[in-house]
Amino acid sequence: MNNIGIGLLGLGVVGSAAAEVLLSKVDKLAEQVGIPLILQKVLVRDVNKQRTIKLEPHLLTEHAGEVVANPEVDIVIEVMGGEHPALEYMKQAIANGKHVITANKEVIAKYGYELLSLAQKRNVGLRYEASVGSGIPLISPFQQDLAANDISTIYAILNGTTNYILTQMSQEGLDFTSALKQAQELGYAEANPANDIEGTDAVYKLAILSSLAFHTVVSPKDIYCEGISRLQAKDFRYAREFGYAIKLLAIAKRDRGAIELRVHPVFIPEDSQLAKVNGVYNAIQVEGSLAGRLIFYGQGAGALPTSSAIMADVLIIARNIHYGRSNIPQVELNQKLTAKPISDIEIRYYFRLTVIDRPGTLAKISKVLGDNSVSISSVIQKESDLKSQTAVLVIMTHTAEEKSVQKALEEIKGLTVVKEVSNFIRVEG
Amino acid sequence: MNNIGIGLLGLGVVGSAAAEVLLSKVDKLAEQVGIPLILQKVLVRDVNKQRTIKLEPHLLTEHAGEVVANPEVDIVIEVMGGEHPALEYMKQAIANGKHVITANKEVIAKYGYELLSLAQKRNVGLRYEASVGSGIPLISPFQQDLAANDISTIYAILNGTTNYILTQMSQEGLDFTSALKQAQELGYAEANPANDIEGTDAVYKLAILSSLAFHTVVSPKDIYCEGISRLQAKDFRYAREFGYAIKLLAIAKRDRGAIELRVHPVFIPEDSQLAKVNGVYNAIQVEGSLAGRLIFYGQGAGALPTSSAIMADVLIIARNIHYGRSNIPQVELNQKLTAKPISDIEIRYYFRLTVIDRPGTLAKISKVLGDNSVSISSVIQKESDLKSQTAVLVIMTHTAEEKSVQKALEEIKGLTVVKEVSNFIRVEG
Repeated sequence: MNNIGIGLLGLGVVGSAAAEVLLSKVDKLAEQVGIPLILQKVLVRDVNKQRTIKLEPHLLTEHAGEVVANPEVDIVIEVMGGEHPALEYMKQAIANGKHVITANKEVIAKYGYELLSLAQKRNVGLRYEASVGSGIPLISPFQQDLAANDISTIYAILNGTTNYILTQMSQEGLDFTSALKQAQELGYAEANPANDIEGTDAVYKLAILSSLAFHTVVSPKDIYCEGISRLQAKDFRYAREFGYAIKLLAIAKRDRGAIELRVHPVFIPEDSQLAKVNGVYNAIQVEGSLAGRLIFYGQGAGALPTSSAIMADVLIIARNIHYGRSNIPQVELNQKLTAKPISDIEIRYYFRLTVIDRPGTLAKISKVLGDNSVSISSVIQKESDLKSQTAVLVIMTHTAEEKSVQKALEEIKGLTVVKEVSNFIRVEG
Repeated sequence: MNNIGIGLLGLGVVGSAAAEVLLSKVDKLAEQVGIPLILQKVLVRDVNKQRTIKLEPHLLTEHAGEVVANPEVDIVIEVMGGEHPALEYMKQAIANGKHVITANKEVIAKYGYELLSLAQKRNVGLRYEASVGSGIPLISPFQQDLAANDISTIYAILNGTTNYILTQMSQEGLDFTSALKQAQELGYAEANPANDIEGTDAVYKLAILSSLAFHTVVSPKDIYCEGISRLQAKDFRYAREFGYAIKLLAIAKRDRGAIELRVHPVFIPEDSQLAKVNGVYNAIQVEGSLAGRLIFYGQGAGALPTSSAIMADVLIIARNIHYGRSNIPQVELNQKLTAKPISDIEIRYYFRLTVIDRPGTLAKISKVLGDNSVSISSVIQKESDLKSQTAVLVIMTHTAEEKSVQKALEEIKGLTVVKEVSNFIRVEG
């Protein structure tokens, strides 16, 4: 073997950045691996499209088979994104004995266990460091560095788009729509931002991390999910009055044989480290039985950070190939753990209620909460409006069971003194 | 081979924690490696000493040879600390074909290259994840995850003791002596705190990290070092007035063929991430050409976090042994880079001068600074004392060359209007 052949599936911004690194650092990479890495073939949709990256025309193909079944290709890098046909191409590559590296969070979250099993049977590597947190080392730390730890919790800001929007709402007092528009203008949010703002992107990433953390198979379907679109600027103001910031967190908590798995907006103490993570940055806080609290912070997206993670995987696999090392699985996903239903979690809550401003209102609301074993820790009345005779009640509760809280909120909605349950947000820490 | 034998050199707090993990997690570790890990021998100073950890008496020995030359031992874990005889024992272990894992920052900083070369010749692993940042994954990320990046800077809080002292001085207004005493009472500082407060501990850790980051051999002697003992509570107050915090940072900056390597107190912007790292925590900020800015945060010391890192290394090496994988070197330290002398760096400065409070004083000082090409960005007069006719001048400069600044400070000391150059601190960012 004179070199290690690389095939690329996709030549968008991430694929172009990866190709650029492979070509521009060819000598440095060869030195690190001990043998040159040669880009052999790149799957594109249209070979004639004008591109900023200069690749020799013979490298481009519109036929996936020329990458995944190419005898010159040892490692296939999948950076086309989306579920299909990326999944099928990766399966074909593995079946053909190729090592696979992917940045595809959706495919790994949904089919990671299946792909890892296929890879193990064919004794090829399957690596996906780029799928979560982009250039922030996360997959390797969970697979290796924390291997002797029992992980109890993950609290993570895994989506830069929503964190940017929340930062703008908090710091500039913008409403959700304006902050989203700004994020779109800056290229931080896509034209169709649903995947980000509804939490789906964070769900995929949490599924991947919690599988590794708890040595089990977590499916995106196991994860409770709420997005950020119902947050209003005033929620941030009230949060601050109570000493909290609002973040969209991906949360995984081990509770003996069960795991809480959820992605939703939360109040977190404003002096906590995660509260200070602003803009498009990501941060992942992990609690290990030995290591204690660790935080990994960095850019969670972008072509260059993603190619940093991809190239780390390329170097590991290429060295394994060159030194004839087997691609042994890093983490067995053999623990049987059940996902705790959201209705069973116990946590504190913030409610924002629009009520009729007259004596007895609070008593009626308190009674409903009390009857459902939801105990109030503080109440502030806001925005009394003489004309409409309404006011806003901001309520913080003590720890209560989600299902009791939801039942109470339903009953509160039915009270004649209540115009609207305007928002409710869970409180961590 | 039915099992992998582990030998321990040292049974202090870290050694006991590591032994405890090996014994209590024996099943889990066996599952992760594919073969049991058996603690075979532990070197102690006195086999009859009372210990909290219960080990069968036959496991203890007072003779290093029974560990490093024991045919039942495959992996030697060195947790005795100190330069000698830890270095010699590690060399013997390697010569006997044992894999070596160490938490010893001093030995790795001073002899890491030599030990790695010996290990490579004998085809055994030498790992030292625990030597820097304790349970924070750092060595592996530099060896693997950032491998495709050119690292431009490291800014790191690598010593929890000094960070605790500085946090207390900043938040509580304590003077250095009281803060140190408090740290000693809480067990964060040793009875002889010199290694921490003079910066030596951070120098060792920076030598290790910067060797990996820049693929070169960095010796502790290459690193300029100042401790924190000359800081006063008032420096923190003045820093805050200018929008800065004071931290003891370990700094490495690549500047083409040279590297700046220094450990000293610095002003950093108070809204920077590192400024918000308080108490005994460590944080390591790295700037990579692809990954951008990354921060790793966690407990930088302690028996459990250290054993987390040690066990990560144990698992990697044990799996390599079990799967018959070679221990290929991770990073070649073959770059020729020179350490830039401190006199050549260019940076901004904070001065605190005690002066005679009369007209013309500032003019004389400004002239000396100007004559040495040191340009003032702001001056505040403080603590005017009518009785002694003195005042304090707090001066912030623009970027200037260290040697010009030192020359200017010497000349300022000689001015009759200047009673004392009370402090000077470099300013980053």
